Amino acid sequence: MSDKYVHGYHPRENERLHDQAGTLVDLLHSDTKYARGSSVLEAGCGVGAQTVTLAQRSPDARFMSVDVSADSIAEARRRADRAGLTNVEFRRADIFALPFNAEAFDHVFVCFVLEHLSRPLEALAVLKRLLRAGGTITVIEGDHGSTYFHPDSLEAHAAIQCQVMLQREAGGNALIGRQLYPLLVEAGFDAVRVIPRMVYVDSSRPDLVDGFTRKTFTAMI
Amino acid sequence: MSDKYVHGYHPRENERLHDQAGTLVDLLHSDTKYARGSSVLEAGCGVGAQTVTLAQRSPDARFMSVDVSADSIAEARRRADRAGLTNVEFRRADIFALPFNAEAFDHVFVCFVLEHLSRPLEALAVLKRLLRAGGTITVIEGDHGSTYFHPDSLEAHAAIQCQVMLQREAGGNALIGRQLYPLLVEAGFDAVRVIPRMVYVDSSRPDLVDGFTRKTFTAMI
Repeated sequence: MSDKYVHGYHPRENERLHDQAGTLVDLLHSDTKYARGSSVLEAGCGVGAQTVTLAQRSPDARFMSVDVSADSIAEARRRADRAGLTNVEFRRADIFALPFNAEAFDHVFVCFVLEHLSRPLEALAVLKRLLRAGGTITVIEGDHGSTYFHPDSLEAHAAIQCQVMLQREAGGNALIGRQLYPLLVEAGFDAVRVIPRMVYVDSSRPDLVDGFTRKTFTAMI
Repeated sequence: MSDKYVHGYHPRENERLHDQAGTLVDLLHSDTKYARGSSVLEAGCGVGAQTVTLAQRSPDARFMSVDVSADSIAEARRRADRAGLTNVEFRRADIFALPFNAEAFDHVFVCFVLEHLSRPLEALAVLKRLLRAGGTITVIEGDHGSTYFHPDSLEAHAAIQCQVMLQREAGGNALIGRQLYPLLVEAGFDAVRVIPRMVYVDSSRPDLVDGFTRKTFTAMI
């Protein structure tokens, strides 16, 4: 992850990342569960927004969660401690220079990370080498270009487009969600299966209006 | 449905509607099942693309399937006969002048119909009066504005926009999917729940590349 991480490292942003993770947790993580004794690399754990969920849902797996930012790792460690997790080890490391042996992990987990990299394909190739034969990778990414509204709003689309451009200028790609299949195939993974997840919000779901539309998406844009 | 039904009544279009129904059948209908003995009004059955699926999935329910087009009803009846259905009655009728008593049905089913009406809210109010207290309505509609691609294609978006405009000129609304919640609430339905369904296609799913991208969506546009 470059110094130009588009969301920045502000405490209020950390709060937003946790609101996002809390609201979307079932949608994103309900089918991620790792077997007893398996070893999982979480690449780009940031402030640990997903780490706590992951590790709680698979209490008998061992997690190695890395991030390029020392501050984020420190924050993630505090959150994991507060949650009483004992199955996560944190380490500061660059995704392109990870201090692990080939085939060291049973599984790799990546969430909202590739969108911030200028070389997502290389990152996937690096991660693939760390996976044992028969291991799995789970990649979760967004796609801001998939957003639509009723009533429609040119202003909202324009604001989102600004975010897309800013992220592109920072070397990332806010539209990477739609590209996961070809990226994973090109990185050499087989049996690639993409399962789209749509966040749908209307006023019958006030928790999502608040947790997603206001505190996650609008706050990010 | 007006005379300006945007998809037309050409035989090749009937084929496309059946390709569409076949490809999307699980996505759209897997959770629609009616109890033994219940009476269901299918409003706007067209050439019966959904009728056969519906009636087969709920063999002990009785269906009344109506459409404004006599030709479509004739075609739907042929298809139902070929499928050996005995629980469907077809009748030609305008959705705004349905020949049924108030509260005559336990359930109403509407699929890809409101998008073609200039007064979808009125249609829903009409249908609501035909439902007994405690009955349900299932409404399935698309939203062409939700389409996106990788690689992205300005030409594809422009072509879709033409379809959106043509449908609007014919009095319809190709973006009605996103509007179902407020429409249903305004029509007086309670406990409205919208469940978004995304058709996702990549080259690991050749049946969908052919059945949906080519034969359904591209063929329609």
